[in-house]
Amino acid sequence: MDDCIFCKIVSGEIPCHKIYEDEFTLAFLDISGDIYGHTLVVPKYHADNLLMANDEMLDHILKTVRRISKHYVDDCGFTGVNIMNNTGLSAGQTIMHLHFHIIPRKENDNVKVYPDKVEHDFDFAEICNFLKI
Amino acid sequence: MDDCIFCKIVSGEIPCHKIYEDEFTLAFLDISGDIYGHTLVVPKYHADNLLMANDEMLDHILKTVRRISKHYVDDCGFTGVNIMNNTGLSAGQTIMHLHFHIIPRKENDNVKVYPDKVEHDFDFAEICNFLKI
Repeated sequence: MDDCIFCKIVSGEIPCHKIYEDEFTLAFLDISGDIYGHTLVVPKYHADNLLMANDEMLDHILKTVRRISKHYVDDCGFTGVNIMNNTGLSAGQTIMHLHFHIIPRKENDNVKVYPDKVEHDFDFAEICNFLKI
Repeated sequence: MDDCIFCKIVSGEIPCHKIYEDEFTLAFLDISGDIYGHTLVVPKYHADNLLMANDEMLDHILKTVRRISKHYVDDCGFTGVNIMNNTGLSAGQTIMHLHFHIIPRKENDNVKVYPDKVEHDFDFAEICNFLKI
């Protein structure tokens, strides 16, 4: 997909703060910077959304989501995660390439899932370095 | 799991408004009634959460989520879905049996994902009858 931002991230044409990569999937920090550690997991092959994804994509993407989530909980000091996927414009999907959000959580972190955007001054490289597998 | 509400729903000990069932998964309306069509998808075998789920569970549950989502969009007049999973108390998980939420969406439906609970007077049986596969 020539005009797909996430395809360009997969190909390396657009850089990202990569958290994890394997043959089928890529995970990187959400550039919005709304929540510490907010991560996106995408299949390397293009599908517009969950409804368009084939079985192989589904098998791989959820295993990658689990792998990263376990890493965040087992190794990075988090105690939980929220997993989210928005399918369709009406559901708030903004990039039309299937992606799952991982929001790492801690007790009393005051994170509300999908809060209004709050400006932070995150150091993406530092966060990425801490979280990557 | 003797004390697990969702295991009791799977076994039939506790009733539910079933949307879909196959050998590995069960889908039913969330009893909170917070959003029209709010659906839960669970594996029939117990796992506390995403981190504890084996590969087979993951393969089946996301295919069921896709199947139901396609049904909601293709057949039930919705134009999108939000898919969510909360893993861990700190992430808002309340029932310790792996489950994915499906929130069916339409343009301008004024649904905010995970809004404060608003009291509605839904007819669960009617909604279930409309949505079930």
